[in-house]
Amino acid sequence: MTLNEIALFLGCEGIEGDIEITGMNTLSRANKGEISFLSDSKYEKELLETKASAVILPASKVHLLPSGVTALVSEEPYMSVALLSQKFAKAIQSSDIAPMIGEGTQLYPTAHIENGAQIGKNCIIMSGVYIGAEAIIGDDVTLYPNVVVYRDCVIGNRVTIHAGAVIGSDGFGYAHTKLGEHVKLYQNGNVVIEEDVEIGANTTIDCAVFGSTIIKKGAKIDNLVQIGHNCIVGEHSILVSQTGLAGSSTLGRNVVMGGQSATAGHLTIAPFTTLAARSGVTKSITTKGVYSGFPLMEHKLWLKLQAKLARMLEY
Amino acid sequence: MTLNEIALFLGCEGIEGDIEITGMNTLSRANKGEISFLSDSKYEKELLETKASAVILPASKVHLLPSGVTALVSEEPYMSVALLSQKFAKAIQSSDIAPMIGEGTQLYPTAHIENGAQIGKNCIIMSGVYIGAEAIIGDDVTLYPNVVVYRDCVIGNRVTIHAGAVIGSDGFGYAHTKLGEHVKLYQNGNVVIEEDVEIGANTTIDCAVFGSTIIKKGAKIDNLVQIGHNCIVGEHSILVSQTGLAGSSTLGRNVVMGGQSATAGHLTIAPFTTLAARSGVTKSITTKGVYSGFPLMEHKLWLKLQAKLARMLEY
Amino acid sequence: MTLNEIALFLGCEGIEGDIEITGMNTLSRANKGEISFLSDSKYEKELLETKASAVILPASKVHLLPSGVTALVSEEPYMSVALLSQKFAKAIQSSDIAPMIGEGTQLYPTAHIENGAQIGKNCIIMSGVYIGAEAIIGDDVTLYPNVVVYRDCVIGNRVTIHAGAVIGSDGFGYAHTKLGEHVKLYQNGNVVIEEDVEIGANTTIDCAVFGSTIIKKGAKIDNLVQIGHNCIVGEHSILVSQTGLAGSSTLGRNVVMGGQSATAGHLTIAPFTTLAARSGVTKSITTKGVYSGFPLMEHKLWLKLQAKLARMLEY
Repeated sequence: MTLNEIALFLGCEGIEGDIEITGMNTLSRANKGEISFLSDSKYEKELLETKASAVILPASKVHLLPSGVTALVSEEPYMSVALLSQKFAKAIQSSDIAPMIGEGTQLYPTAHIENGAQIGKNCIIMSGVYIGAEAIIGDDVTLYPNVVVYRDCVIGNRVTIHAGAVIGSDGFGYAHTKLGEHVKLYQNGNVVIEEDVEIGANTTIDCAVFGSTIIKKGAKIDNLVQIGHNCIVGEHSILVSQTGLAGSSTLGRNVVMGGQSATAGHLTIAPFTTLAARSGVTKSITTKGVYSGFPLMEHKLWLKLQAKLARMLEY
Repeated sequence: MTLNEIALFLGCEGIEGDIEITGMNTLSRANKGEISFLSDSKYEKELLETKASAVILPASKVHLLPSGVTALVSEEPYMSVALLSQKFAKAIQSSDIAPMIGEGTQLYPTAHIENGAQIGKNCIIMSGVYIGAEAIIGDDVTLYPNVVVYRDCVIGNRVTIHAGAVIGSDGFGYAHTKLGEHVKLYQNGNVVIEEDVEIGANTTIDCAVFGSTIIKKGAKIDNLVQIGHNCIVGEHSILVSQTGLAGSSTLGRNVVMGGQSATAGHLTIAPFTTLAARSGVTKSITTKGVYSGFPLMEHKLWLKLQAKLARMLEY
Repeated sequence: MTLNEIALFLGCEGIEGDIEITGMNTLSRANKGEISFLSDSKYEKELLETKASAVILPASKVHLLPSGVTALVSEEPYMSVALLSQKFAKAIQSSDIAPMIGEGTQLYPTAHIENGAQIGKNCIIMSGVYIGAEAIIGDDVTLYPNVVVYRDCVIGNRVTIHAGAVIGSDGFGYAHTKLGEHVKLYQNGNVVIEEDVEIGANTTIDCAVFGSTIIKKGAKIDNLVQIGHNCIVGEHSILVSQTGLAGSSTLGRNVVMGGQSATAGHLTIAPFTTLAARSGVTKSITTKGVYSGFPLMEHKLWLKLQAKLARMLEY
């Protein structure tokens, strides 16, 4: 799609010159040939340094654009991005190349591997597993029955994924019209699972909007956990059952989250932090420690609060 | 099954006259030829206007019956209904008619479509998908791998359902014996998903006891959400991950429920209401607004409460 | 594996005599020919009465060993157990005996039954179901599409399991190195589901580390429930949607747990106890009653607390 076609599609004013646009990306990740956007002024700093070829942004921000970057003016840039994202959405099937299966790998007959996928050596890919187009599976991987790996996802060596887990389903992102309708922001990123990760049954890990949702090496994730788009789970972190990470949560290494705990998204948790069961993180945690409750507090404060509440009950 | 056979089966007193009974239904929905029941006196008003041919109810309520409606007297009407429901339960397979598949629809080889199902045009029905008997799927529907659609469910045009989601599983309903055993109330209703709905991975939506669980057009539902029997999710509502709706929750249009929030069931939420993450709704919400907490309160009150609790910790 | 091979593998001191070790087990369950371990001094009493042939334990506890039981000295017994557990892990496939399918049982063509499994009479095993090696399924069992039953699990007569549920996935257990890495404790037990149990869609029930996770007869479990390894769910108990039981929770008969409630594990709940929605149990409950909240309290106290908090908001 060329930049002029995009401008036309979005109803932006005509632009001078024209180039082929290969994809969409965030301001900080975009490269030459990609289009990006500014929908939240907290990213203005990234705008100043973007390598994107064009940026969708409101008229009031055009003066901030680096020279050589084309402006596509929109007063609803997030909606423009959502509308445009469909044009760059990847098809479920996109390759004619038969999947490559490594030596010693056992494929159950009802597993379905899309064209363009690659599977390493000595894996066991059990019944009902689905592996999407261009997905890459390492060596010694075990995918239990009915695991689903969406297109483009990457799974490292010695990863085990238990039955029914879904890797790479669409992140939950929409722009909203004034009439209250929701326009899907197509999720064109992937999930990268590094080596020695174990993932529990019926857990769901969404793909990134752009770029990757990343589960770093050695992390252990229990059953029925939800990990939103663009999260990063640090090395050797532990997420106990029914935990939920909202989008763009970044966990340092060796973070432990107890059962049914959650994060609110767009925040960072310091390495070696422990979060008690049911805790709810709404702000970044910069100092490692043990935290509890919702709203979150230091665990010892939470104990003090419970003691005070218990005393209230005595009268 | 005739009314006399039903009376005999339930151990009710003999009844005069006899007719064929075609099904069970609630007092307000039942039509001629159907049997209904009164197990909770709050539905007495509906009894007065029921079109059912017969009603299971305690002796003390028989005088309320409209003329021409036969009484089946039971001092445990809910238990009688549960016992009888099995007689009207639908078989998993019930049709000899090969499924109808619309033009341009792609069926993966391991998808299983029961007889009597209908699938529209230009759908993609991926590997491991199951579509039950008499289910109706619209046009341009995407069912990702291992989605399960139980019998009789109806899915509108342009619906997308992500991997592993289950539509139409049995609602959770039992009558209880004095010995503490549970007698299943067979769930003979369905799920209706209107057009342009998107449903996340491993989400579960239960079928109705009678009638339909309804997801209205444009609603967006995230991963690992639970929707109980007979819920109605309003147009363009948004349910974030791990939310749970207990049975017979009715959400108006554009309700937003944050992650891990929940409703207690048998309640109504006003249109355009926003519920913060983790909020728990136990009573109907009649005024739109932003609510938080469990028990639920206005969000600004919840903030005030948290501030007061924080102050308690200072001493 | 012989005891000498085990000692060598774990880097324990050489031992006198040698015998074949057939498996690992807890102190109280282990029999002659099995190896056990003491990693927590609260199990010392069980050590005194163990029938294990050998026990992994720290030097300071060796004097407690009954005579005739061999000590394998390790200052990190839990890590030694984790390392050793891999040696006793069962393969996914382990039998050459074609599965036995009872009369009147319907197997959908995409169901996958491993060798060594046994299925009773008049079952319906729907599309995409997986049944592992040596699993035993009773009579009149309904497994809806994409149910996964791991190896060795036992399912009683008249059990119904809804779509996507996973029975017998690995419990979540790891030993931790000083560098913060996690060493998997292989979960060699199973799940036993007794007769007349119903299990909801996408629910997950983990197998035991050793022995069995047990769901007793007549229990009813809703959708998206998580049951950890070695739990025991009592007869006719009811677990509502999105409930989570941490490992080794023992529920008496007729326990009712509301939606999104949870237990902290290694605790016991008295028969006929009712836990409100969202309640979180962190200590054993010895007296039946109605409980709420997190931390848990009697429901009437919880109501009093909420009233007091509401009053705080008036100023």
